[in-house]
Amino acid sequence: MRTIFYISDGTALTAEAFGRAMLSMFPSQVEHKTLAFIDSITKAEQAAKKINAAYEESGERPVIFHTFVSQDLKNVITATKGADFDFLDYFIEPLSAELNMEAKPITHRTHSIQENGVRDSYDSRIEAVNYSLANDDGSNISDYDQADIILLGVSRTGKTPTSLYLALHYGIKAANYPLTEDDDMENLQLPKPLKLHRHKIFGLTLEAQRLHEIRSKRRDGSRYASMQQCRFELQEVEKMYRREAIPFLDSTRFSVEEIAAKILAETNLERHHY
Amino acid sequence: MRTIFYISDGTALTAEAFGRAMLSMFPSQVEHKTLAFIDSITKAEQAAKKINAAYEESGERPVIFHTFVSQDLKNVITATKGADFDFLDYFIEPLSAELNMEAKPITHRTHSIQENGVRDSYDSRIEAVNYSLANDDGSNISDYDQADIILLGVSRTGKTPTSLYLALHYGIKAANYPLTEDDDMENLQLPKPLKLHRHKIFGLTLEAQRLHEIRSKRRDGSRYASMQQCRFELQEVEKMYRREAIPFLDSTRFSVEEIAAKILAETNLERHHY
Repeated sequence: MRTIFYISDGTALTAEAFGRAMLSMFPSQVEHKTLAFIDSITKAEQAAKKINAAYEESGERPVIFHTFVSQDLKNVITATKGADFDFLDYFIEPLSAELNMEAKPITHRTHSIQENGVRDSYDSRIEAVNYSLANDDGSNISDYDQADIILLGVSRTGKTPTSLYLALHYGIKAANYPLTEDDDMENLQLPKPLKLHRHKIFGLTLEAQRLHEIRSKRRDGSRYASMQQCRFELQEVEKMYRREAIPFLDSTRFSVEEIAAKILAETNLERHHY
Repeated sequence: MRTIFYISDGTALTAEAFGRAMLSMFPSQVEHKTLAFIDSITKAEQAAKKINAAYEESGERPVIFHTFVSQDLKNVITATKGADFDFLDYFIEPLSAELNMEAKPITHRTHSIQENGVRDSYDSRIEAVNYSLANDDGSNISDYDQADIILLGVSRTGKTPTSLYLALHYGIKAANYPLTEDDDMENLQLPKPLKLHRHKIFGLTLEAQRLHEIRSKRRDGSRYASMQQCRFELQEVEKMYRREAIPFLDSTRFSVEEIAAKILAETNLERHHY
């Protein structure tokens, strides 16, 4: 099997994103290897050995996605037997012309703590994570004044991972509130603590079959996990979303990245991080 | 100020990563705008209007980073007055030649739930998030058998955001365990529940000044936040890391992405997600 290398003198997150986007265009089965913080000639030479070894083992030329700032380190990698792709190199000149500005590459700037030169932006992202944790699962409803968004849904519809992703990735203070059997599902109303914050609420829902599968992993054979109960809860909660004009999303076919991006696209919430 | 647009018929996460990496090479002040899920001609035309309006308002040509799969939608965007950069387009031919395979672009594959065609990989990532939440802050020590890694450190050294990032981004089950004053700092030993799992432990530490600032935001003027206490705790915990041969990292100058990538680079933990 062909090996794909993601290599950088920084985190290699950009090389991974670049390579992953490229590979998604091809229906190929490959093995992935990330070599991050390759920030000395010695480390670059070790990386080069790994690349050449992968070629010898599989007989297929490794593919290398890299984003080096240091030209000397890059030269060690491009001298290997792998096929290397360097998107920074290709686009830097046209972008420099467009911005009318010389490039001043600094290692480790993309994912550093000084986002756009501002430490505050990073701190506010960590603050959002702490907020979302403290406001997970309906705790701390007194803090909803500070929420950027409040995710609503029945148990196991993806509220928690979505809140954490919104906080970690975008610096958004995302609370989440669960609808439970105590909420009188047969006559479901918007819970009182949420009424004042209606404009911040976003609903999540799922297909009944998927919810049944997820809940069955938790409590197999329970009423809670039964197809009938899942179908009933989802039907009632969607009715309420419509009645209360709460925007909502069926997350069955979406990853947490997609759910978060869709919520941002629908709500025009401001990203605190790029 | 110049506006940078990140546009895609999917999440636009790749366009953001691509553009952000390119812009990090230039010391420029810009405004960022993401237009995600531009998946119809109507939406593409609305996006085109926004791009042209940004040009008219600022007098500076907007820069567009885009990753469209649909050629028709892309044409609407490239016909605007913005300067557009399309890295997929440029690299697709050489990669196709290298892989000896035709590209079969499918919208929304990069960040979809079918990571590399495998739903299980996505589910295990969500499972890792649930694990890390349940094992935050020393709770649930009975589950440490399942941990991929256990982060250790005194209060407020970044254990929680790092665990969550490892889980969300890489599908790694990351528990975290806090060292507190109850642990008898003057004679600090590796806590008993951790002794069996010593090989999974990774320590976090900070500079005393930074820890003092962070703790002061929580409890200003307390003994807990005092420079003296912060210095003492960090000194004792670092002594213990060295004595017990626990790998550790001073996270003062690093973002959560960098900390996570450094931990992976040092421990050779397997990523469950690319």
